[in-house]
Amino acid sequence: MNLVQHNAVYNMLSLGIASMLFTSLFLWIARDRVLPKFRMAVMVSATVTSIAAYHYFRMFDSFKEAYPVGGTVDAGFAGYNVGYRYVDWLLTVPLLLVELVAVMGLARAMQKSLLTRLVPAAAAMIILGYPGDMHTDLWGIPNVGWAILSTIPFLYILYVIFIEIGKSLAAQSERVQRLLKGARLLLLATWGVYPITFAISLGQGTAAPSFDAVVAREIGYSIADILAKCAFGLIIFTVARIKSAEENKEFAATEFKD
Amino acid sequence: MNLVQHNAVYNMLSLGIASMLFTSLFLWIARDRVLPKFRMAVMVSATVTSIAAYHYFRMFDSFKEAYPVGGTVDAGFAGYNVGYRYVDWLLTVPLLLVELVAVMGLARAMQKSLLTRLVPAAAAMIILGYPGDMHTDLWGIPNVGWAILSTIPFLYILYVIFIEIGKSLAAQSERVQRLLKGARLLLLATWGVYPITFAISLGQGTAAPSFDAVVAREIGYSIADILAKCAFGLIIFTVARIKSAEENKEFAATEFKD
Repeated sequence: MNLVQHNAVYNMLSLGIASMLFTSLFLWIARDRVLPKFRMAVMVSATVTSIAAYHYFRMFDSFKEAYPVGGTVDAGFAGYNVGYRYVDWLLTVPLLLVELVAVMGLARAMQKSLLTRLVPAAAAMIILGYPGDMHTDLWGIPNVGWAILSTIPFLYILYVIFIEIGKSLAAQSERVQRLLKGARLLLLATWGVYPITFAISLGQGTAAPSFDAVVAREIGYSIADILAKCAFGLIIFTVARIKSAEENKEFAATEFKD
Repeated sequence: MNLVQHNAVYNMLSLGIASMLFTSLFLWIARDRVLPKFRMAVMVSATVTSIAAYHYFRMFDSFKEAYPVGGTVDAGFAGYNVGYRYVDWLLTVPLLLVELVAVMGLARAMQKSLLTRLVPAAAAMIILGYPGDMHTDLWGIPNVGWAILSTIPFLYILYVIFIEIGKSLAAQSERVQRLLKGARLLLLATWGVYPITFAISLGQGTAAPSFDAVVAREIGYSIADILAKCAFGLIIFTVARIKSAEENKEFAATEFKD
């Protein structure tokens, strides 16, 4: 890997660490700026970015060791552990959906019904995607096969978020509706980056992905992660702030000017 | 690099770590000494110095490894990651503008209008500056070309801060006005140090910057960082204290003597 390629990934992973770490610190401390009933959503957001911060430290070290300047493609492929990303997503993606549902403040039965479907679907999506990114044609199924299998729960999650959760949006204030629709679009846009990134090295089968493919993959996954976890978490926090102000005039008076 | 050069940068980076780390600690804990409505500005200030503390630790380690006493110019150039500074600025410079706007307590529409222009401009300024400091003539554009491109959003930010925000200053008390004008001048003065520092090694093209240029760059960037983040954050905190006392007599009586 040459110096420019190496530094591009190196800096992107360091940006990932810093974004995750300090969004976490901010959210953990800022949770008392919302009413108690919305703190769980903020704390789950903080947990998501904290889990990701840990995995970005791991990925950063793994990358530095596997892809030194001047190293070969095969050595990097064998040494870099892409599994950190999937372990991270296995924990954080279901929690991102918990955040989204928690901040909406739905009735308990509705909340339970959504989560008992969204959480397993999210886990299935991640677990089925991993063999495709390992480039080993696990159980004789090629990368593209795993990609298709993983897309099924992905489409189901989109259906639930856009159609079923969409119906509950009507009960929210106009400002909250606008923000939640923005959050939903952010999820769609960033979750859409993962399959595109995934597809870059899809055609290479069990061969080691080229350096260019590795650089594109790491940059794509990192940008998507920062938007889907940090930006999404901060939107959830903002929704919680607005709903706190809407529900409690006294809280609004001490926290907000208008 | 000789011992004097090495120690000059080493001590400056260590000063950077200490300044960032303990300004963060102070601001995180001191946030409850202002009214709730001004806490967000103080917490964003604390987030900025926390992010910088992380990057100063990274830069310190990277520098020690890349530029040992007695090492050669080229080895240091290849080993030192100036990208840490740019990743840091990409996160912190937009947040510094958020701090400034947040503490002014403007109407929500005005606040939103300012930030939707300032934040992207700040990000563009940093992203366009990085290739110039990499000394690689990326995409055939020489360092000075990147410097000029990066100056365009910089001038736009100055316009917004001095002309547009200037108009809103009239609504503030005299004491707050004086402090905010000071904060604005501090931003202008310290942000002016960056391009000067940048320019020191500009003429060297894709060659490795000389040791003297590296020492001047690291000292210049570090002093500018400490003023623009720690000193600026403490001014924002002071403004928040004064505004808290102005708005709430009871708070003033328990917090201040005068």
